[in-house]
Amino acid sequence: MLQMQKGTGLGKVLQRNATMQVLTAEAPVEAARYGRRAERLAGLLRLGLPVPRAVALSFDTVRGIAEGRMPALAPILDALGPGAIVSVRGSPENPDWGGPGTILNIGLNAERAAGLAEILGRETAIAAYANFVRAFAVHVARLDEEDFAAGPAASAEAALAAALTRYEEEMAEPFPQDPTDQLAQVLRAMARAWQGTSARLLRQAKGAPPEAGLGLLVQRMALGLGRGKSGAGTIQTVCPETGAPGIFGRYRSDAQGLLAPPPTDPAHHLTRADGSPSLEDRAPDIFATLVDHVRTATAGMRDAVQLEFTIEDGDLRLLDAVPVPRTARSALRIAVDLADAGVLSRDEALMRIPPRSLTELLHRRIDPRAARDVLVRGIGASPGAATGRIVFSADAAVAAAARGEPCILVRHETQPEDVRGMHAASGVVTERGGVTSHAAVIARGIGVPCVVGAAGLTLDLRHKRLIAPDGRNLLPGDVITIDGGTGEVLAGGIDTEEPALDRAFETLMAWADAVRTMAVRANADTPAEAAVAKSFRADGIGLCRTEHMFFEDDRLVVMREVIFTDNAADRRAALERLLPFQRADFAELFRIMADQPVCIRLLDPPLHEFLPKDRGAVHELAAAMNLPVSSVMARIEDIEEFNPMLGLRGVRLGITMPEIYEMQARAIFEATVEVGRDDVAVVPEIMIPLVSARREVELVKSRIDAVAAAVRGETRTDFDFRLGVMVETPRAALRAGEIAQHVRFLSFGTNDLTQMTYGLSRDDSGRFMRDYVAQGVFPEDPFHTLDPEGVGELLEIAASRGREARPDLTISICGEHGGSPESIAFCQAAGFDYVSCSPFRVPVARLAAAQVALDARSVAASG
Amino acid sequence: MLQMQKGTGLGKVLQRNATMQVLTAEAPVEAARYGRRAERLAGLLRLGLPVPRAVALSFDTVRGIAEGRMPALAPILDALGPGAIVSVRGSPENPDWGGPGTILNIGLNAERAAGLAEILGRETAIAAYANFVRAFAVHVARLDEEDFAAGPAASAEAALAAALTRYEEEMAEPFPQDPTDQLAQVLRAMARAWQGTSARLLRQAKGAPPEAGLGLLVQRMALGLGRGKSGAGTIQTVCPETGAPGIFGRYRSDAQGLLAPPPTDPAHHLTRADGSPSLEDRAPDIFATLVDHVRTATAGMRDAVQLEFTIEDGDLRLLDAVPVPRTARSALRIAVDLADAGVLSRDEALMRIPPRSLTELLHRRIDPRAARDVLVRGIGASPGAATGRIVFSADAAVAAAARGEPCILVRHETQPEDVRGMHAASGVVTERGGVTSHAAVIARGIGVPCVVGAAGLTLDLRHKRLIAPDGRNLLPGDVITIDGGTGEVLAGGIDTEEPALDRAFETLMAWADAVRTMAVRANADTPAEAAVAKSFRADGIGLCRTEHMFFEDDRLVVMREVIFTDNAADRRAALERLLPFQRADFAELFRIMADQPVCIRLLDPPLHEFLPKDRGAVHELAAAMNLPVSSVMARIEDIEEFNPMLGLRGVRLGITMPEIYEMQARAIFEATVEVGRDDVAVVPEIMIPLVSARREVELVKSRIDAVAAAVRGETRTDFDFRLGVMVETPRAALRAGEIAQHVRFLSFGTNDLTQMTYGLSRDDSGRFMRDYVAQGVFPEDPFHTLDPEGVGELLEIAASRGREARPDLTISICGEHGGSPESIAFCQAAGFDYVSCSPFRVPVARLAAAQVALDARSVAASG
Repeated sequence: MLQMQKGTGLGKVLQRNATMQVLTAEAPVEAARYGRRAERLAGLLRLGLPVPRAVALSFDTVRGIAEGRMPALAPILDALGPGAIVSVRGSPENPDWGGPGTILNIGLNAERAAGLAEILGRETAIAAYANFVRAFAVHVARLDEEDFAAGPAASAEAALAAALTRYEEEMAEPFPQDPTDQLAQVLRAMARAWQGTSARLLRQAKGAPPEAGLGLLVQRMALGLGRGKSGAGTIQTVCPETGAPGIFGRYRSDAQGLLAPPPTDPAHHLTRADGSPSLEDRAPDIFATLVDHVRTATAGMRDAVQLEFTIEDGDLRLLDAVPVPRTARSALRIAVDLADAGVLSRDEALMRIPPRSLTELLHRRIDPRAARDVLVRGIGASPGAATGRIVFSADAAVAAAARGEPCILVRHETQPEDVRGMHAASGVVTERGGVTSHAAVIARGIGVPCVVGAAGLTLDLRHKRLIAPDGRNLLPGDVITIDGGTGEVLAGGIDTEEPALDRAFETLMAWADAVRTMAVRANADTPAEAAVAKSFRADGIGLCRTEHMFFEDDRLVVMREVIFTDNAADRRAALERLLPFQRADFAELFRIMADQPVCIRLLDPPLHEFLPKDRGAVHELAAAMNLPVSSVMARIEDIEEFNPMLGLRGVRLGITMPEIYEMQARAIFEATVEVGRDDVAVVPEIMIPLVSARREVELVKSRIDAVAAAVRGETRTDFDFRLGVMVETPRAALRAGEIAQHVRFLSFGTNDLTQMTYGLSRDDSGRFMRDYVAQGVFPEDPFHTLDPEGVGELLEIAASRGREARPDLTISICGEHGGSPESIAFCQAAGFDYVSCSPFRVPVARLAAAQVALDARSVAASG
Repeated sequence: MLQMQKGTGLGKVLQRNATMQVLTAEAPVEAARYGRRAERLAGLLRLGLPVPRAVALSFDTVRGIAEGRMPALAPILDALGPGAIVSVRGSPENPDWGGPGTILNIGLNAERAAGLAEILGRETAIAAYANFVRAFAVHVARLDEEDFAAGPAASAEAALAAALTRYEEEMAEPFPQDPTDQLAQVLRAMARAWQGTSARLLRQAKGAPPEAGLGLLVQRMALGLGRGKSGAGTIQTVCPETGAPGIFGRYRSDAQGLLAPPPTDPAHHLTRADGSPSLEDRAPDIFATLVDHVRTATAGMRDAVQLEFTIEDGDLRLLDAVPVPRTARSALRIAVDLADAGVLSRDEALMRIPPRSLTELLHRRIDPRAARDVLVRGIGASPGAATGRIVFSADAAVAAAARGEPCILVRHETQPEDVRGMHAASGVVTERGGVTSHAAVIARGIGVPCVVGAAGLTLDLRHKRLIAPDGRNLLPGDVITIDGGTGEVLAGGIDTEEPALDRAFETLMAWADAVRTMAVRANADTPAEAAVAKSFRADGIGLCRTEHMFFEDDRLVVMREVIFTDNAADRRAALERLLPFQRADFAELFRIMADQPVCIRLLDPPLHEFLPKDRGAVHELAAAMNLPVSSVMARIEDIEEFNPMLGLRGVRLGITMPEIYEMQARAIFEATVEVGRDDVAVVPEIMIPLVSARREVELVKSRIDAVAAAVRGETRTDFDFRLGVMVETPRAALRAGEIAQHVRFLSFGTNDLTQMTYGLSRDDSGRFMRDYVAQGVFPEDPFHTLDPEGVGELLEIAASRGREARPDLTISICGEHGGSPESIAFCQAAGFDYVSCSPFRVPVARLAAAQVALDARSVAASG
């Protein structure tokens, strides 16, 4: 298939070769055959923009060249104009897959350089020729780059002579003078480099298919050199950092590109604002045309673009128009502005933003320009940057916070009793654990930057020091900075930037909310987290873990009494003292969330989490409870488990010690009545954790119903509530049909469900998960990205059986996966009602939900 | 519906009441309406045996009586003969569900007693009346039993007077003299007691449905008293203990039952062999008739029966014919003998034996007549009785065994390093753990009696003593006895009986093997276990766990080196030294099993199981490895896991340290070649544990294939092998379709699969499992009885997806459930190829497999 510029006398020749094409305004070019750049240039031509004449070689042609089938080149050169100096540029299908650097000035030789000297002046022309010789020697003949470095030379003439001599010495032949020969060598070198092993591996690592092709563009050069208005530059009309309107770019007069040798005329600046002299000042008409061209290209290409241009003696030519490189922040602003300007629809604007990129906007981040002194690289578990003084205990963190001193809490791993320290700290680092370890989950919930699994660090608590892999010792009080996005732990303090929740962000989020069909709730345990959830417009709380409520000092003592009591009556009496605390906790949450749903999970963790770990605390506890140390120790040992994840926790606790859930239910109901008096209408949702059998649900349900009846009677107030089950065991998923008969909602705890489906502990997987993912054993860390095949099938089975039993069943995900775009797509397809995620992932989830809704809509429209 | 004895003048009256029936030889009686005893008596009549005339009251009638609707009784009494003295007996549908005790001599009053005195003599007649008054007072009028105890009295006359006076005092009315009134009161008392709450709860606990009914039999008495040949007894023609032929029973002359007051004539014995005087001697004709009746009843009722009989003045009457109460051993002998005699078919004989009862025959057991001084009751985890001196460590057990001294190993719980101690010990007791704990699994495998979860015991290792719940201190060397069936730990030595693997056992097993369609393999890790498996005729080894092979002293050191080595080359070098051991292990197994299949599981446990736990051993290891103690400690800590069950083990180990599986594969292949030279043809099966993703299988498969190719080349010998996957994670079950494409068999590890499906650790479930089963949360302990709904569904999904992908896929169960009859029924229905279980459960499994095959056959025949 040959598309030809009509009226070109060379048509006949090119026609024979079906996979070359002269770019024209009339004929579209497929990126899948000629590469993205060729397609773009054809697009610019179609927009009437001035692009130097070019011939595109298809992937097939280039592959043929690498294999020794060089097409006839003279017709190409002829098509670009007699005696044209040309460039060759790469045009891969996807720019991320690499490709050769551009070679300029092909066709220059002694004779033509002499001719050019008459137009441009001798020095400029000879310098251009010398540059070509050097580029050819290094990139085409593959000679040693150092031998051809453009060092200081007495004159351009001397530099050229040196380059030509060196070339001839190395190659045992003179520098090729025939333009066709030059072009052939350039094309062959580029085509072969693309087929080389290292290039192939590199691009496959970036997702390129094995057969990915390279197109090449042979293009007449706009020289950009010479005595008149000549030069090269880039221009765009949005700020690369923020996306705000403005003219940005660079310009060099008398240059063939921005990296070319120093120009003889120092017009370095594009705009007046950049400095003087500038193109804007010196050629206001060209500048205005350029700005106009950007607008034309933006509208035509439906994206903010950066133009590459050359001016040859006042004549403007565009070499490319690439999408403006952007940050998460500018991408968002650009999309919103394009939609506001009518270039994009709002739906398109929504689809332009990768949901995960929003995370960057919600947190402080390290100034990308700052130097980083990396102590160790762990796993980025909760995004954001934090700087502070090292502390090694929750107590020290609380004390530092009391002094108003930012601190970073460093632990082997965190326990529930560290949570208040995590709240107090500016950031958290743990030696062990993975992305779903305790530290990671809590930190994401409260938005504290966190690095886990920083295995290179040695925390030596006996000598109160932290040893970096390079041997540096860090002591309490030393300042470090952590990057919870990249997982880096850095020495010292570093400049950071504030979060960017601007108007564009709010606008896009509002558009997302208008489009999405799935609700997004937040996992929030504390009033602080609930407030964050509210500020990110979560549609309620999907998971309120109640265990933290037992860890505050005065409560923990009572909870330990509960554990040490061996009869129901004493246990009930101890729990009676916890009731007012719990009630107040729930009332506060209900008030913050106003009329939005709040789903409360009954106590879940194994009891040993509430018991002291170290000797001192055991002695204290023994004294407080008036028991011999040995019997406290014995009880603690008694409660220890081989596999706590699979032990006496969740509903098993609720059934063996029913008084705990009864107290919690009472606190929830009394809080409901209390806030109801202030006109906060709550229908609390109560969720039973770790269910594996229908009968567990029946037993807990009947007790909770009894408590509700009692509270209704005592308060003479009616209220409703919804009982549900957290589906975390494969068995609960399989038996969802019979479980659903007793409840109004099922919410998937995908962390635990993933652990049990794989038989893989999230806390222990860190040691080999990287290996496993690197070897492709698992395509992704299933704790990071929901496993659609195993865990996903269980979700689908449960959802369909649950809905069959009870069509109005509410179904959701509340595990760590809740905020991930892949899981949200899964949940949308499976017809779930909502996802619930860490408060700081709510915006990500809202946007992802909008995108999957749009996807579903377009599938429906096309189907 | 009324069935009537033809020609009875009372027919008309009884006819009106559709739910009473005079028992006759012609009319069958439904146990579902009249109870089992009524059905049996009708059966005896049908066989022409002499049964006193009786009227059966249906469940409905008895329910009516309890509710106040007493039927007309005079016709009943008339139907039994004018002036008859009668008894009332209970006739529940299932004798296990309880029911009232028999009341005799109803109808006796002052007048009739006087009449009777003329026949029987005064003393006897008055004593019978007095007995009736006492029984009536206690069981019908519900008076205090102590007040009516038959104490020493001057004469029968005096005893009667005392009873009548006491009755009148308590009831404020004289003892009822009207026979109809007496009968009415007896029937009402029995009917009401059946409806009482405690009786109801008791029978429901035994599986009775809420509406279970009670039938009653009103029967003319054969008095068994008096001057002629009179008395009562029981007789059967098989030994109750062994089932061997012989005449067994008891007899008392001049008695109404065996528990009646001391007879005036001391003819206590049934047979001459029992002692003198005996019925056999005194009434050889009656004795011969009795023996003949037993034979008639046995043939007619198609089971060995025990007759209850009464002789009234030489006239023989049968009161009942119940199946002979039997032990596991006698049951088996009876079934085989009945089949040999043509009374039963072989299939019927097979169906008569509960498979689990065979377990009793395979082990020594405590003499059932011996007194038991129970120290504590734990969980019976491996059946059999053992007596020995207490030892607290594996070393001590080995030392005791070396001295030839039986010992019982007592531990908190066992670890892999205790296994050699378990082999040396006669029995094992652990303080912690459940039926599938380490100790339990190993003990069952090697057939050592074991009690686990003996939580009442306190093992105080510091003071080297064991404290019983009652405070007794037991020291090393003290003798205890354990009953691995009941879970009892007993003080001192107790008489035990040897296992009974006699001709009847072998015969029944041979019949079972002829019938069953499913193979039964054994889980066997050692040559000793393989030999047991072979002796029990297992169809091969279904699971050979290889980890034990790393625990012997010299190997453990090398294994620890493997763990401490941080590069593949050193690891490979260390493993090289283990290779000869492994090869010898496998060669020995192959030789023992001859040409039968042997399925070898590659290394499965987490590495920390190989590391020392106590301080001393850590120091030793450090010295042996020439490493500082701190770095050994650090490495051990590093390897520890939060949830080892879900950690770095199984195939994860095989992928992160591929050298281990490579060494094991090589050992297997080299052993195959080695025994092949001696004409032992083995196709070894290699099983990959803990798989959760297809890619894991691909990676291991390609490495094992490479090892096989290498060994084939080196030895110039060809051999085949079969690769398979142990399905233990829910995900492997769900993805069985794609996994099956790479393997030739799938074997379900139902222990782990149950743990993961429920999210429940077998080691930690003991603390609440009893509660859970007692409350009906789980109908059974799922580690004991395969959960058909959750785990079972995963098995079915995996089997059908696996077979769809590869129709010739071999499918089996090799978890602890493999030997349970319920699982075997499940596996048969699901079309599995074999089950694999502990060697000592092989006979149970063979019989269970025969029974499910027969069930399937009869379903097919009726379908």
